[in-house]
Amino acid sequence: MSTPLSVGFLGLGAMGAPMALTLARAGFPVRGFDVSPRAGEVVGEALELLPDPRDAAAGADVVVVMVATGAQLHDVLFGERGIADALGPDTVLLVMATVGPQALESCAQGLEGRGVRVVDAPVSGGTARAATGDLLVMVGGAVEDVDAVRPLLDAMAGNAPVVGPRVGDGQRFKVVNQLLCGVHIAVAGEALALADSMGLDAAQCLEVLSTGAATSFMFEDRGPRMLQGDQAEVRSALDIFVKDMGLVTDAARAVDQPVPLASAAEQLYVRGRREGHGRHDDSVVFDVLRSR
Amino acid sequence: MSTPLSVGFLGLGAMGAPMALTLARAGFPVRGFDVSPRAGEVVGEALELLPDPRDAAAGADVVVVMVATGAQLHDVLFGERGIADALGPDTVLLVMATVGPQALESCAQGLEGRGVRVVDAPVSGGTARAATGDLLVMVGGAVEDVDAVRPLLDAMAGNAPVVGPRVGDGQRFKVVNQLLCGVHIAVAGEALALADSMGLDAAQCLEVLSTGAATSFMFEDRGPRMLQGDQAEVRSALDIFVKDMGLVTDAARAVDQPVPLASAAEQLYVRGRREGHGRHDDSVVFDVLRSR
Repeated sequence: MSTPLSVGFLGLGAMGAPMALTLARAGFPVRGFDVSPRAGEVVGEALELLPDPRDAAAGADVVVVMVATGAQLHDVLFGERGIADALGPDTVLLVMATVGPQALESCAQGLEGRGVRVVDAPVSGGTARAATGDLLVMVGGAVEDVDAVRPLLDAMAGNAPVVGPRVGDGQRFKVVNQLLCGVHIAVAGEALALADSMGLDAAQCLEVLSTGAATSFMFEDRGPRMLQGDQAEVRSALDIFVKDMGLVTDAARAVDQPVPLASAAEQLYVRGRREGHGRHDDSVVFDVLRSR
Repeated sequence: MSTPLSVGFLGLGAMGAPMALTLARAGFPVRGFDVSPRAGEVVGEALELLPDPRDAAAGADVVVVMVATGAQLHDVLFGERGIADALGPDTVLLVMATVGPQALESCAQGLEGRGVRVVDAPVSGGTARAATGDLLVMVGGAVEDVDAVRPLLDAMAGNAPVVGPRVGDGQRFKVVNQLLCGVHIAVAGEALALADSMGLDAAQCLEVLSTGAATSFMFEDRGPRMLQGDQAEVRSALDIFVKDMGLVTDAARAVDQPVPLASAAEQLYVRGRREGHGRHDDSVVFDVLRSR
């Protein structure tokens, strides 16, 4: 086996930390950076933490970016301590954050002329699967660039299909994923809220309807947390879907595609945030729809 | 075993015919009626067909009604050849049609004074499961009335939970089921249409996303038919969801429950019917969303 790829990993949050640790455990030398000093508590000694993102990126074969928003991606590249100048033709920039096609294409354009190779690889699967290297990674980019980062993808993902040749295709595929997830969570809340309003036993609805044509992964996953109410553990914050349904409707508008259901779901998430539920588990949409 | 219940079965359409045949096969004497003379071609010699619904209902222990709409249910009971006068305290009226809580409650009120016992038992599962006696039946009604028809339910259903004590609770439960099914079909079409519009491979989206958090029963069931386009076999007509999403929004309005996703889905089905797709497979919503 040849020398393992050296990795700079920027963004060690709820998803980034377990992903970086998975890479380190697989034998890749990883230098990490996060804006929060608390990242060190999570990743411990398993990888080298640096106080400046440019130092984490310098000389790395692959720079992985796992931030939360397009604005953060832009800042990582072109901000005050932006890493763009540390990148060159020998580096692959592997963007695993969910930022939407427009933000990614804009950043890739900003890197043109430096010869940086960009691979677009957002993920799905949550923190548990991040920790076990079992993510779904949706990969967009040129074949040779994807091949160059394949060992990292294999370490982090249970499945990492190439979904298109363009940088942005991974984001587009993730947008389709989020459209389905965001609508399925919202409609699970709507169905259980209607059951409750009509005087039915919502728990029986969940139990009976989970076995038939009405079910979805999200109905079975979020349904029990909806019925727990305030006791529900925060596994995925509502704020994430405020952001991601915004990416869905932005991406759809860019290709003149009406998405009436995604749009209705987006409004529910926005309303939930306004009512103070942004950091609550996204299953809170059930309560948002029941409020009187 | 005591003498099997005698059955009058009104409505021998796509669902009613296999349900009536299942009862006949299980040993119940069934006398049937349908407005269409073609019903005889389907049920053959297995049950006794009568030309007047009143004769099919007269003297039966249980009269099953499996029509398509609330208006048809009203006509069966109180129309020109309505069976209401043939019913009495010794009869259980077993309404298995999906007509919504309001229509059923209205008909039950019209029968008050005759002492007729009504059980509300709409079904889910499609024609194949109707033929094998493996339907999901959602049962609302008084315990003693449900007990009286339990042998019939056991013959037709794989699962027939009592979901509430009121006549109308079965319809309410079915409304929750249809809300989920109708939205899941519509959002499957919306997601695949967006994938296509963004230049992704919709078939790959279906394949990859079916394995993860974005999936639903309907995404996996209707998705392949969506991608077949005009070649798709008609398994469930779009018209059914025009009717059923109307029942959903009616039932929700009656309890002041907002259902923004169901409402958005309803508009898609209505638009599909206006564009001439009422009798096409409901997977045609994919084409409705792609139309330019």
